[in-house]
Amino acid sequence: MAGDRSADSGRRGSTRRRFLLGGAVAGIGAATAIGADHVLNRRPAEGEPAAPLNGEETVPFHGVHQAGVATPAQAHAVLVALDLRDSTDADALRRMMRILSDDAARLTQGVPALADSEPELAVTPARLTVTFGFGPGLVDRAGGTRPEWLRALPDFGVDRLRPEFSDGDLLIQVAADDPMTVAHAVRMLLKDTRGFASVRWTQRGFHHAHGSVRPGTTMRNLFGQIDGTTNPQPGTEEFERLVWNTEGWLAGGTGMVVRRIHMDLEGWDRLDRPGREQSVGRYLSNGAPLTGTDEFDEPDFEATTPIGFPVIPEFSHVRRARSDDPNEKIFRRAYNYDDPPSGSEISNSGLLFVSFQADVDRQFVPLQRRLDELDLLNEWTVPIGSAVFAIPPGCAEDGYVGDTLLG
Amino acid sequence: MAGDRSADSGRRGSTRRRFLLGGAVAGIGAATAIGADHVLNRRPAEGEPAAPLNGEETVPFHGVHQAGVATPAQAHAVLVALDLRDSTDADALRRMMRILSDDAARLTQGVPALADSEPELAVTPARLTVTFGFGPGLVDRAGGTRPEWLRALPDFGVDRLRPEFSDGDLLIQVAADDPMTVAHAVRMLLKDTRGFASVRWTQRGFHHAHGSVRPGTTMRNLFGQIDGTTNPQPGTEEFERLVWNTEGWLAGGTGMVVRRIHMDLEGWDRLDRPGREQSVGRYLSNGAPLTGTDEFDEPDFEATTPIGFPVIPEFSHVRRARSDDPNEKIFRRAYNYDDPPSGSEISNSGLLFVSFQADVDRQFVPLQRRLDELDLLNEWTVPIGSAVFAIPPGCAEDGYVGDTLLG
Repeated sequence: MAGDRSADSGRRGSTRRRFLLGGAVAGIGAATAIGADHVLNRRPAEGEPAAPLNGEETVPFHGVHQAGVATPAQAHAVLVALDLRDSTDADALRRMMRILSDDAARLTQGVPALADSEPELAVTPARLTVTFGFGPGLVDRAGGTRPEWLRALPDFGVDRLRPEFSDGDLLIQVAADDPMTVAHAVRMLLKDTRGFASVRWTQRGFHHAHGSVRPGTTMRNLFGQIDGTTNPQPGTEEFERLVWNTEGWLAGGTGMVVRRIHMDLEGWDRLDRPGREQSVGRYLSNGAPLTGTDEFDEPDFEATTPIGFPVIPEFSHVRRARSDDPNEKIFRRAYNYDDPPSGSEISNSGLLFVSFQADVDRQFVPLQRRLDELDLLNEWTVPIGSAVFAIPPGCAEDGYVGDTLLG
Repeated sequence: MAGDRSADSGRRGSTRRRFLLGGAVAGIGAATAIGADHVLNRRPAEGEPAAPLNGEETVPFHGVHQAGVATPAQAHAVLVALDLRDSTDADALRRMMRILSDDAARLTQGVPALADSEPELAVTPARLTVTFGFGPGLVDRAGGTRPEWLRALPDFGVDRLRPEFSDGDLLIQVAADDPMTVAHAVRMLLKDTRGFASVRWTQRGFHHAHGSVRPGTTMRNLFGQIDGTTNPQPGTEEFERLVWNTEGWLAGGTGMVVRRIHMDLEGWDRLDRPGREQSVGRYLSNGAPLTGTDEFDEPDFEATTPIGFPVIPEFSHVRRARSDDPNEKIFRRAYNYDDPPSGSEISNSGLLFVSFQADVDRQFVPLQRRLDELDLLNEWTVPIGSAVFAIPPGCAEDGYVGDTLLG
């Protein structure tokens, strides 16, 4: 890992393509004099459109906050949780986070990692973001102050947690609109961690492809439900208040909850459409509450049927998820998963639930308690993995993610 | 499975959106009067661009050949192989293929399956293709004539085949530019097969996202190599001759080889760049042969270095894959895979190799024999799955895939 890791990673714009090649050459020492268009593997022009490709879009890595939280969700994500080796002390953590931050800064800008073994796979950033999270074990190892909520969630009655999808010391969330980009970035970053940590779990998720549906369309999960209608919108005061922590080394950071929620598609199949809509409290067709006509209509929990029952059932998901306290709210950034079934499973599908909130205990836990008690959807969903991480703030170009804790 | 399965599935163009809703209503009996824009979950216009979305693009299902062979490769694919139940006789095969063909025709046009449980997930076809293949067991069960090559491939010395990735009676290849579309279509089609067959294996693969790189860019595998430069081009005489079978019930069909090739990314890492380029016989940067400067330059196998060695090594992949016989050639349509590692694996990545050729024994086997003997790449690649299928011709709107065998 010798070499100048600080240079260049902040460059942008018109010099990017030339730099790309510079990065490739520096990274792997190839003594070629091949031009950048060759590295990018372009065919000759032939009236090639001048419009930038989706794959060329970049999201800044450096800043007040880490990218990958407020960033509009990309089509593909891989979440990797690692366990620290016994020998990884605070000094080693510092080295690891410097190396990881530097390579993440490069890769997100379409620049090969410093020791990139396949630099040609690094040139399609496709809105790549890399987001690092610290588990309780890492903060302890660093000798830092651990926020009270940074620990395993309380037990919920619905949970059937499996260790292979739970907990971890270091979280790396890699997301981009191109699955090749994600695969390459995960590989490069995991190589950086090898001396310091080992992989505990890997989870993959997806949304609609970039450009497949209109921007701003709320995602659907694999039950066909519109999922996330009431999410706070990045850029609003509400989002800022709910998501970003303001205390100590975590100021500008946030708390992250990851839950792997198995969805019983076979059981759901046996439920008819009105039954499904009652269990959610929304129409499947467009996500409107059962008391409304448009997805973004406010649900009317007082409305009753002619014979006096609530139109939106008491036990429906939308009712149980709602609090009167405007601070008991989270920002969701979930992905669908659909992995190959194993054994006698017919499907292995569900939701890779991800939420960000400044304080997990005050925002996530009460909401999950209400859902745990009475949410009708519990019939067809089972949490099988759970983890909590502190997401440190972003870093400056001469810093690294975690420097407010480790620096 | 009652209901009129023949109607409507051939409609196209401007009536599609209205039909969409018709399909949804017919399929699941939802007595709503909600407009199609609601089903599509569109937000209000706000200067919405008029350009069609990637997700709205369709590939015709009916025709002389099945789609998904000459179709430019989509970003995502799932291949599922099924074993027939003992009770599935020729009559049952006929029923199954009718149902599958009908639902595939619908789904590929953005129309919900007849008994679609999540019709809202069906409205983003994203160039969806569904391609059916028959293994030896299915053709025998149908009482049909089995092409001589329709059997397990001969043993190759490099093979370490696992039954969980090999063989099968029925193959369903589902590919689209949107991973949500693929997940939903696989689920609907597997529901159609439940009374007739059980899943033997499922394999997932990907390319760059749609719109991420320029159309026509040759794919790279996870070694970073450009892969498929010399592929016959659909539309050419060479492609027609090499790919489409002309005999009996398979006229207009083809032969399919599926090989799961584990790639040892860790071992490959230890090889330097010149070593990698020698093993392939091409430059990693742009895929040009070591005797050329452009990807599509013809390799010069006679060229020697100043001290008399061949510039393109005798044992390089490009040399070993090349035959002097213009009929010993295949059409490749491979995908990358990158699955979560299990146990102590650091990565679980490789190539989901797919090739189409009119005659597997005459085209694929001699090529694979040459690679098996001496290809340097064998050092870092291991075939761990293998299957051969006959891909029947396409069908007319009033027919079904396999009707030339079963009809």
